[in-house]
Amino acid sequence: MFDEQIDDLTDAELAREREVAGGLAQATRGLVDAVIRSTVSEEEMLAVTAEVEALTARLRASQIPGSFGVSHTPDGTVRGYGNAVVGLRNAVAPPVVVHQSKEGRAWADIHLGAAYEGPPGLVHGGVSALVLDQVAGEAAAAGGTPGMTGTLTLRYRRGTPLGDLHVECWITGHEGFKTFVSGAISDADGPTVEAEGIFILPRWAREGAKPDRFE
Amino acid sequence: MFDEQIDDLTDAELAREREVAGGLAQATRGLVDAVIRSTVSEEEMLAVTAEVEALTARLRASQIPGSFGVSHTPDGTVRGYGNAVVGLRNAVAPPVVVHQSKEGRAWADIHLGAAYEGPPGLVHGGVSALVLDQVAGEAAAAGGTPGMTGTLTLRYRRGTPLGDLHVECWITGHEGFKTFVSGAISDADGPTVEAEGIFILPRWAREGAKPDRFE
Repeated sequence: MFDEQIDDLTDAELAREREVAGGLAQATRGLVDAVIRSTVSEEEMLAVTAEVEALTARLRASQIPGSFGVSHTPDGTVRGYGNAVVGLRNAVAPPVVVHQSKEGRAWADIHLGAAYEGPPGLVHGGVSALVLDQVAGEAAAAGGTPGMTGTLTLRYRRGTPLGDLHVECWITGHEGFKTFVSGAISDADGPTVEAEGIFILPRWAREGAKPDRFE
Repeated sequence: MFDEQIDDLTDAELAREREVAGGLAQATRGLVDAVIRSTVSEEEMLAVTAEVEALTARLRASQIPGSFGVSHTPDGTVRGYGNAVVGLRNAVAPPVVVHQSKEGRAWADIHLGAAYEGPPGLVHGGVSALVLDQVAGEAAAAGGTPGMTGTLTLRYRRGTPLGDLHVECWITGHEGFKTFVSGAISDADGPTVEAEGIFILPRWAREGAKPDRFE
């Protein structure tokens, strides 16, 4: 695994990797969508299946074992490209592009298509939870008090339509090594799902950190 | 959209669709994994990208507008093939194959690989929520009291390792049109994430249904 590995890549190489590997993942997102929605003939689907398998074999000619993990460049740039929500190389991820402010707020404008469906025409309730967990965790980190999810509570106010959505989360308080975060997913008519989470700094990360603001 | 559409397919045609379209989605899951893990050259990634785009165009030569929705055959077979957790045609879905018993219990053995990662080597907390939401909803339905997710609360006891996992949820009670469900994701050492959910029969579905057991 590339767990916490330090890579020796230049800025230009990193930018190029984002472009090339990110472009491949983006093309794969298109394929995922088309596989759900296609009505071409059986023969054509079987032919495409064989070609997808051949492309997969080409990519696997050289690959890392296990999962992507998180790698860092010497200047501290984090490459969480495998992440299921924000991962640039992960076609399961929409991907969500999260913006952050130092006051402990994180937000994203996202588009969820056919691959994120639960009830007909609506976002899967679990997908809303998936996105809110990530954005809430980034809000906690943005405020200087990162943590792993301790608890997460979702309240579903109404169905969330597939399409363009806004996600926003913010820190509401601290207690020891816990950070309290609230947030919501909204469509044009307002919030559809509300979330409250408690994020906890893991024990192994507490050395030198002080409770409450971890400063 | 194929929302609640009635299809006129025979059993044999349905089985064949599961095999062909399901096989294409399964091949696409392999591609998604390879895109995350591949270390082939830039030139090769660019070449594969162009081919993925060409295959996508072939599938899009004929496709439904919007999302898959849910379709039913005349005998009531439900085809939720687009579902983000269990959808046979959806490469975002692992897919989770859920077993049910009439007492209101649902369970699944799943394997979560690189595409479901959050922290290095661990399942994304939101992916655990995604899977638990689906299995909890199926437990409610299995007991004869289906519903949409009203609230869902996740407690993360420890990191969930990528790999083989067991998910199980069960009805704990009823109140009016609400069904209370508990459950957990477990690895070989026991539960890693616990869930409690309230599933609510939508107003539009209540005609003829009685509270508590909807009978």
